[in-house]
Amino acid sequence: MIHKIRIGLIGYGKTGKAVANVFSSDSRFELCWIARSTVSEGVQTHPDTAVPIFGMERQSFERLFDSYPVDAIVDFSSAKAVHRYGELVRKRGMMLVSAISSYSESDLAYIRSLAQSARVMCSPNITLGINLLMMAANLLRKAAPFADVEIIEQHFKEKPEVSGTALKIAENLGLRKNQVTSLRLGGIVGEHEVIFGFPHQTVRLAHSSIRREAFGAGAAFALSHLSVCGNGFYTFEDLLLRAAYR
Amino acid sequence: MIHKIRIGLIGYGKTGKAVANVFSSDSRFELCWIARSTVSEGVQTHPDTAVPIFGMERQSFERLFDSYPVDAIVDFSSAKAVHRYGELVRKRGMMLVSAISSYSESDLAYIRSLAQSARVMCSPNITLGINLLMMAANLLRKAAPFADVEIIEQHFKEKPEVSGTALKIAENLGLRKNQVTSLRLGGIVGEHEVIFGFPHQTVRLAHSSIRREAFGAGAAFALSHLSVCGNGFYTFEDLLLRAAYR
Amino acid sequence: MIHKIRIGLIGYGKTGKAVANVFSSDSRFELCWIARSTVSEGVQTHPDTAVPIFGMERQSFERLFDSYPVDAIVDFSSAKAVHRYGELVRKRGMMLVSAISSYSESDLAYIRSLAQSARVMCSPNITLGINLLMMAANLLRKAAPFADVEIIEQHFKEKPEVSGTALKIAENLGLRKNQVTSLRLGGIVGEHEVIFGFPHQTVRLAHSSIRREAFGAGAAFALSHLSVCGNGFYTFEDLLLRAAYR
Amino acid sequence: MIHKIRIGLIGYGKTGKAVANVFSSDSRFELCWIARSTVSEGVQTHPDTAVPIFGMERQSFERLFDSYPVDAIVDFSSAKAVHRYGELVRKRGMMLVSAISSYSESDLAYIRSLAQSARVMCSPNITLGINLLMMAANLLRKAAPFADVEIIEQHFKEKPEVSGTALKIAENLGLRKNQVTSLRLGGIVGEHEVIFGFPHQTVRLAHSSIRREAFGAGAAFALSHLSVCGNGFYTFEDLLLRAAYR
Repeated sequence: MIHKIRIGLIGYGKTGKAVANVFSSDSRFELCWIARSTVSEGVQTHPDTAVPIFGMERQSFERLFDSYPVDAIVDFSSAKAVHRYGELVRKRGMMLVSAISSYSESDLAYIRSLAQSARVMCSPNITLGINLLMMAANLLRKAAPFADVEIIEQHFKEKPEVSGTALKIAENLGLRKNQVTSLRLGGIVGEHEVIFGFPHQTVRLAHSSIRREAFGAGAAFALSHLSVCGNGFYTFEDLLLRAAYR
Repeated sequence: MIHKIRIGLIGYGKTGKAVANVFSSDSRFELCWIARSTVSEGVQTHPDTAVPIFGMERQSFERLFDSYPVDAIVDFSSAKAVHRYGELVRKRGMMLVSAISSYSESDLAYIRSLAQSARVMCSPNITLGINLLMMAANLLRKAAPFADVEIIEQHFKEKPEVSGTALKIAENLGLRKNQVTSLRLGGIVGEHEVIFGFPHQTVRLAHSSIRREAFGAGAAFALSHLSVCGNGFYTFEDLLLRAAYR
Repeated sequence: MIHKIRIGLIGYGKTGKAVANVFSSDSRFELCWIARSTVSEGVQTHPDTAVPIFGMERQSFERLFDSYPVDAIVDFSSAKAVHRYGELVRKRGMMLVSAISSYSESDLAYIRSLAQSARVMCSPNITLGINLLMMAANLLRKAAPFADVEIIEQHFKEKPEVSGTALKIAENLGLRKNQVTSLRLGGIVGEHEVIFGFPHQTVRLAHSSIRREAFGAGAAFALSHLSVCGNGFYTFEDLLLRAAYR
Repeated sequence: MIHKIRIGLIGYGKTGKAVANVFSSDSRFELCWIARSTVSEGVQTHPDTAVPIFGMERQSFERLFDSYPVDAIVDFSSAKAVHRYGELVRKRGMMLVSAISSYSESDLAYIRSLAQSARVMCSPNITLGINLLMMAANLLRKAAPFADVEIIEQHFKEKPEVSGTALKIAENLGLRKNQVTSLRLGGIVGEHEVIFGFPHQTVRLAHSSIRREAFGAGAAFALSHLSVCGNGFYTFEDLLLRAAYR
């Protein structure tokens, strides 16, 4: 019998909710509890599964981990949460999957220190498809550095800023910021395209996301691969490359 | 001063002509002569450059190589030509770039034997972009073997058969033939798309070719990388991976 | 002050729910009640708005219309419902927007008879974008009947049959069924593409849907245009052409 | 027996040559002569067909039209040429198809005056596909003026300015110039895409051109439709709408 990976989810905004839905419908995992920043009085539960939801302020993580032991923490909340539960991850050797994009340098240094005695995966974008796109784009860039490259990102009208993911792809490929073009229209969740132009031909790599649940699928992929790694700090791309070349 | 790579081109059909145009306008190369299966009486020349064109039947390759020595043979003719010039490649240690798709098993065994004393690159599709597409698709397939995969190829109306390149991609990815879909319409030179479907997202890899000259750019890429390899037999993907991970 | 259009929604499956969400957040409309085929005991309400939900079996439509008068019926249920409420539409001159695709010839004849004393819009696909795609494709087909045409539709893996919308487009364009190509992959809600191939160029018309709410937006568009028409039977395309050429 | 339309082609740059190739291989037309701005001494001829090529400076158009009478003038040269042959078009009632984009207001007024006694088609972009794209985009804009609209145009690296065709589409649709996005990469001949964004869905109209011969196909389409019109001034879109709604 295969042991299910027991999960504590931190963060329950729009994305956190989508992630909770994915974990609670994937038989490889057991979602044990959810911690969110604010809850009203009384015990709350996840609507489909009755998984309990705790308020981070009111709750000692130590007592939570004692009452509801888990194998892994999945963090979709904000940069400060890791300082509340980090030492417990270190002491108990739990896995940590964090999708926070706003960590400071010192936050990251702290997380790397945890990785000496735990398995930690930390990436600002945890979508499987985006990471596959990045990996393929990096490979093409290295193999054909002479190609013209442009990035187009298209998102819903309400997103004012340039996509952080597109800027990250540009940085990885050694492009200037003005090689990222942004379009905003109704009816688009999120699309990223990297175009390589060669004499007489083009290669286009495109990712299209239709729902936030894609983040949950990415966290599930990360966790299932992290569970067979040794202690250490991994990015999503590290796990993908291990999957590809194992 | 950098030595130009001197080239003898074998094959002068539609693709061979496009390849000749590419080599004669790239300063890294010197196109020294062209050999084609049939020529009418008298000496012919390539229109833009006055490079001489010889008929293979009337011409001993040994005498040709003596009069017009080259560093590399680029072969876009047919499977039998290699048996006419192969021993000269072996003896003189010339580079060979061959884009013939119709070699038999015994042809290929012979070419591999030449590779013991020469640098040989042999691939049925020598387009840079298609090989980049294949390389990226192989990587995604290995990293995410659980994804749904479909291939669409679109070509001009006069192409009756399924694209050999699409079937090759399917074979590399371990797909069934019915996972290749073909469309035929006017106004399309050649497009190949590999679609990876995941929960809530897709990744699309697409190659679009607009002219036969793309084959010449591929041969030029292969030759420039082959020139820094040791003796041996290489596919186009081998050279790309070396370029990517050097 | 502009009068809101008061709506009774019939049908509350997955699509009906999405339609209810659209109408209850669009200030041009007032969703007054929902009728669904089966409800458990007691009064139910739409979660965000407290709009009452009635069971069709237990409920006389006449009493419903008396207690909660509406200007328009929007029907996303099944073919038989119209025979329950049709005479009330006729007598009271209400508008009717129906998106049922399974009407028989005699159902349609009945609905056309209602249109003599009411404004009726009836189309099997009520998505705004799909109808715009169809309208544009019809125009191109008429202007350039000599073009090669192919249709590709891509949907999620669980949809086994060929898209009815794609077959309808093919029928409108006078194409054979084998000019419709279907792909099924995870991560795609619904995509339809009509490709026109000409010598040396192509024109592609593509529709991409990301949520069922698109049906609600279509119903809202239809209703707002129907409200300024005279009595009669309209298709979605009729309303679009009126909008375009008014 | 159907009479072939006899053509005199004015302009023999890159596009003019492509147009000559299209007319000389289409059995509905007979290409009788070509006039270009400069020719060296002696008589020149079109390579595949031996059609004579005259220099405009050395040649009286009157004598040319007497010696080689034609039914139609096709002009791909520059704005000033029409003032040399215009009165002959008027007197002899020839058809005129002009693809000049640099006409001044007074040039256009003069051409409109010719249209009182001749059939004249005058459009800055004479590609069939681009005009179909424009026609469809105009229709969608009128039917759904509330949609978000963006235009992307992609061209080869050597094209510095924003595509005039894209700006024309934007003008027709009532968009601002900053709703046109331009990308420049190797391997692309010319692509224009108009994206309409709606709640929960998008419609994309895309044109892709792979060769200059597309201009010839457009001129042939225009001429074959012009030949069944009465005297007057037509745009390409006028002819398309007549074809669509005849």
